[in-house]
Amino acid sequence: MSEPAQTLDGWYSLHDLRSIDWPSWKALSSDERESAIYEFQQFLEKLNKTQENKKGSHSLYTIVGQKADFILWTLRPTMEELNEIETEFNKLKLADYTIPAYSYVSVVELSNYMGSDSKEDPYENPYVKARLYPELPKSKYICFYPMDKRRQGNDNWYMLSMEERREFMKSHGMIGRSYAGKVKQVITGSVGFDDYEWGVTLFSDDVLQFKKLVYEMRFDEVSARYGDFGSFFVGNILEVDKIAKFLHV
Amino acid sequence: MSEPAQTLDGWYSLHDLRSIDWPSWKALSSDERESAIYEFQQFLEKLNKTQENKKGSHSLYTIVGQKADFILWTLRPTMEELNEIETEFNKLKLADYTIPAYSYVSVVELSNYMGSDSKEDPYENPYVKARLYPELPKSKYICFYPMDKRRQGNDNWYMLSMEERREFMKSHGMIGRSYAGKVKQVITGSVGFDDYEWGVTLFSDDVLQFKKLVYEMRFDEVSARYGDFGSFFVGNILEVDKIAKFLHV
Amino acid sequence: MSEPAQTLDGWYSLHDLRSIDWPSWKALSSDERESAIYEFQQFLEKLNKTQENKKGSHSLYTIVGQKADFILWTLRPTMEELNEIETEFNKLKLADYTIPAYSYVSVVELSNYMGSDSKEDPYENPYVKARLYPELPKSKYICFYPMDKRRQGNDNWYMLSMEERREFMKSHGMIGRSYAGKVKQVITGSVGFDDYEWGVTLFSDDVLQFKKLVYEMRFDEVSARYGDFGSFFVGNILEVDKIAKFLHV
Amino acid sequence: MSEPAQTLDGWYSLHDLRSIDWPSWKALSSDERESAIYEFQQFLEKLNKTQENKKGSHSLYTIVGQKADFILWTLRPTMEELNEIETEFNKLKLADYTIPAYSYVSVVELSNYMGSDSKEDPYENPYVKARLYPELPKSKYICFYPMDKRRQGNDNWYMLSMEERREFMKSHGMIGRSYAGKVKQVITGSVGFDDYEWGVTLFSDDVLQFKKLVYEMRFDEVSARYGDFGSFFVGNILEVDKIAKFLHV
Amino acid sequence: MSEPAQTLDGWYSLHDLRSIDWPSWKALSSDERESAIYEFQQFLEKLNKTQENKKGSHSLYTIVGQKADFILWTLRPTMEELNEIETEFNKLKLADYTIPAYSYVSVVELSNYMGSDSKEDPYENPYVKARLYPELPKSKYICFYPMDKRRQGNDNWYMLSMEERREFMKSHGMIGRSYAGKVKQVITGSVGFDDYEWGVTLFSDDVLQFKKLVYEMRFDEVSARYGDFGSFFVGNILEVDKIAKFLHV
Repeated sequence: MSEPAQTLDGWYSLHDLRSIDWPSWKALSSDERESAIYEFQQFLEKLNKTQENKKGSHSLYTIVGQKADFILWTLRPTMEELNEIETEFNKLKLADYTIPAYSYVSVVELSNYMGSDSKEDPYENPYVKARLYPELPKSKYICFYPMDKRRQGNDNWYMLSMEERREFMKSHGMIGRSYAGKVKQVITGSVGFDDYEWGVTLFSDDVLQFKKLVYEMRFDEVSARYGDFGSFFVGNILEVDKIAKFLHV
Repeated sequence: MSEPAQTLDGWYSLHDLRSIDWPSWKALSSDERESAIYEFQQFLEKLNKTQENKKGSHSLYTIVGQKADFILWTLRPTMEELNEIETEFNKLKLADYTIPAYSYVSVVELSNYMGSDSKEDPYENPYVKARLYPELPKSKYICFYPMDKRRQGNDNWYMLSMEERREFMKSHGMIGRSYAGKVKQVITGSVGFDDYEWGVTLFSDDVLQFKKLVYEMRFDEVSARYGDFGSFFVGNILEVDKIAKFLHV
Repeated sequence: MSEPAQTLDGWYSLHDLRSIDWPSWKALSSDERESAIYEFQQFLEKLNKTQENKKGSHSLYTIVGQKADFILWTLRPTMEELNEIETEFNKLKLADYTIPAYSYVSVVELSNYMGSDSKEDPYENPYVKARLYPELPKSKYICFYPMDKRRQGNDNWYMLSMEERREFMKSHGMIGRSYAGKVKQVITGSVGFDDYEWGVTLFSDDVLQFKKLVYEMRFDEVSARYGDFGSFFVGNILEVDKIAKFLHV
Repeated sequence: MSEPAQTLDGWYSLHDLRSIDWPSWKALSSDERESAIYEFQQFLEKLNKTQENKKGSHSLYTIVGQKADFILWTLRPTMEELNEIETEFNKLKLADYTIPAYSYVSVVELSNYMGSDSKEDPYENPYVKARLYPELPKSKYICFYPMDKRRQGNDNWYMLSMEERREFMKSHGMIGRSYAGKVKQVITGSVGFDDYEWGVTLFSDDVLQFKKLVYEMRFDEVSARYGDFGSFFVGNILEVDKIAKFLHV
Repeated sequence: MSEPAQTLDGWYSLHDLRSIDWPSWKALSSDERESAIYEFQQFLEKLNKTQENKKGSHSLYTIVGQKADFILWTLRPTMEELNEIETEFNKLKLADYTIPAYSYVSVVELSNYMGSDSKEDPYENPYVKARLYPELPKSKYICFYPMDKRRQGNDNWYMLSMEERREFMKSHGMIGRSYAGKVKQVITGSVGFDDYEWGVTLFSDDVLQFKKLVYEMRFDEVSARYGDFGSFFVGNILEVDKIAKFLHV
């Protein structure tokens, strides 16, 4: 048996993607729509409070194309809180005019292929804490996709030795670091929680950087031979004060 | 032909996952919702009676994410009883406000790669009986996923010798045992009953243990080379006295 | 080119699986439901007549789990009759409260890997006739699944010689025969008629025998290397006099 | 690069498969149904006119099983005409009571692995013309399926030499010819037009010949190693004077 | 690690495919339909303005077969503008009578396997600019399909050296060039934006050229071994003055 890498786990994560049922939404009276928007804004205000209190974080983006109309990504200390937020959303008036598009359950993860010689508790390391319990950025663009490490014939990630995987991940990490300042990346682990093994969420103020980064990585052996990818979702930030305009009909 | 392992089979099993049709549910009058909830609670009360009488067992959890809103897992001595419970549920008022999400038909199974020299009837062994006819725990979290043993090219589980499979399963079982006290695992066999070959249901009071266990096992050759996994569902316990709150709108 | 085995072909076959639209069904008045049930019973009575006259056969079972609520399996001498039965069912009142779940078009088939030296017309052999034009049993349980013989890389059934396939099928048949008296098996061929190549329908009074039989066969090289399976459906017999109870709300 | 075979291309082709929404159809008044049927018959009458004028051809069959209720297959000289027929159908009253089931866009194709030494324009050859611009037969049964030539590992049709492919196709063609008089076959090419590479449509007055032909071909190396098949649809001819009966409720 | 090719990126791209909900559309009054058509024409007029101002481009075609009824393909300088056009379309009256069929998010891409020795900024090269920011042609036919480069076993594009890929692409490009004047091709890159890696959109006044081109390329090793294709959509141009006729019922 090949030794798994250590992982450090932070906040639980729910990517919630929804489409808007525009015909039904339009069929509402203007008053009903306004009160549904107001109620949704109050809901987001509550999420903001939690974020200010460092008890979680969240992001709201519109999604380009028919796969979904928006994504609400929420991070929380417990699985119960994720479930509560999801249920609370479902009970909003606005939710009645949305159609489930895709969701992803995971937990913020730092995969520690380097290990550590220090005696220090990594969960007390400020750098580690900032990454496990992040305040999500307000970048202009988001990119989300789930992925697996391949287990097929000669391309079986889980049959590699710890040493081989460490080498692969080192080169992979170097590509990621070359995008520092241009793309912020949050990895969430979903083994045992959802259908893929990891969720990758990227933020940038230059949407083309997503393409450049993912394309460059695809030639890296760890992706070329061992990466299996789910759907890709790309979107534009939806500031709270733009919601009314987005939903105005 | 490779010799199959002996299996011991206990109660029949139905994992029934449903989503709630929130917009229609909200459209009911408060009285109608209350009476639907009450009827559902009575139904659960009946299941509880059966469990107290050791004639079956069941679990009720909410599911995180869009795949489903809740899972009702039921164990019974016969396939007819599973079918009756399913039909009885479908006739409840609440069922009209649910949407089928996924289901799984199987039977509690102990796979006996060790065999036995004893003359004893294993079905009379108290340890075996407790595992074939379990009372499901009231843990805080559930994790359910179906799986196959792979039959592909050089990674064909069913072409291995009994001896090879026994060795693989021994190492696999050791990982499982290292989680004793942290994760309770119930294996159900579904060959001939449903689309995958086994269902795996895990219970824990620490949801992160699901990820640790499944991740560690994935590096074990039996999973790395021979495991094909279906969807993963993770959820929080839904105590009977929390149902009204969960469904309150 | 590898020589195909001879097949003997009997009655045409339609497996018709449906779910019940319970909410709409409940919305009917009690009178409407009763008359729909009565009409369905009359339809089944007509099928019974045909069966008594040896002009076909049929089975009706409820299905466990969400894949379907019931299966009506019909055998007839012509493809036109299958189509007529299907259309006649669709015109029943009850059909308006069902949702198509799955169907399978095939023909009862005896695959003759042994060939025959005799001059006798096999279609005149009483044993063969009884299998090609069977009266379906009233066993307590049914199991249905479609399957293919694999054509992938080194595991390509259709590239094997006749001799190799005959050897494989002989061992396969021996497992089947060891279940004689416990499981009755009807094979239907669907090459050119439906998406898989064969349908397998099993009957038994002990549902666990389905699991034992399919599991044991999976270790047989012909399944282990060459079997690709579709969905499995398992169910309980629905006697005509139980229909009203099943549909009573 | 391997040299592609020459193809000769005839009429454009649209296989249009639809299910009937029986509950809504029944909810119409008898008068409304009659006028919808009459309008559909007028539409078919127009198609007949085109066929008589040798400006196209078409077939109408009911389909057995839940995949579809009927197929309307149309051949026309231009892609625009196919699109017009489809739109005209959609504007019929009857179309409101149908549900799209599957469609296939292609062009009648003769694949010319033999090439030709003659100076003659093959499109002027009467035998070729009759096959590129066929009047579809009124056989009792139809069988339609789309297919690909496999490109996987060592089984990659498109990496074979012209010489190898010619040999494979010759043996394949010999099987086809042995069914002459029993099965009429029309091949349509869909590379660049639809998801598979070819559509195969078979006609016969003996439905069992479809099974025999496709089964025999499956053992031919060109199918065994290089054939990937889509869904199979089988059906019975629906004569214009049987439409009213078929749709009568 | 294998070196990725340089790409030049132009306008962002949204292929938006929709089906028409004909029964609901017909249920509208003639006045309502006319005003919905007029509003849609005004929307297209705005897109035309943008195109005249060289701030984007777009195409409108009907699609043959059931996969979709029409495609609106839009190119714009920013991802935000694509999202706005999509939302604006969704708010049109006509959109309420359409059903999402498929969409694709990408960016016009020139893949530069040749590199460049010149010091010139390629984005200033008039030939490059014309291809990155194209005015889409008004050809009679469109063909759209997404595709991946394969990463499977020995057929792994991303494990090839830059030199090997350059050779493959050179031969590929030569086929493309042999169709110059007959087929116009626009490649859009979607790595990090959508589920496939590239979108290919072809325009021609002879629909058969799509089949010839794609078929010829399939024998080229870069497609034969390394091409994985999504759905193919083929359609006829829908001129603005034909919209009313197309939607007239």
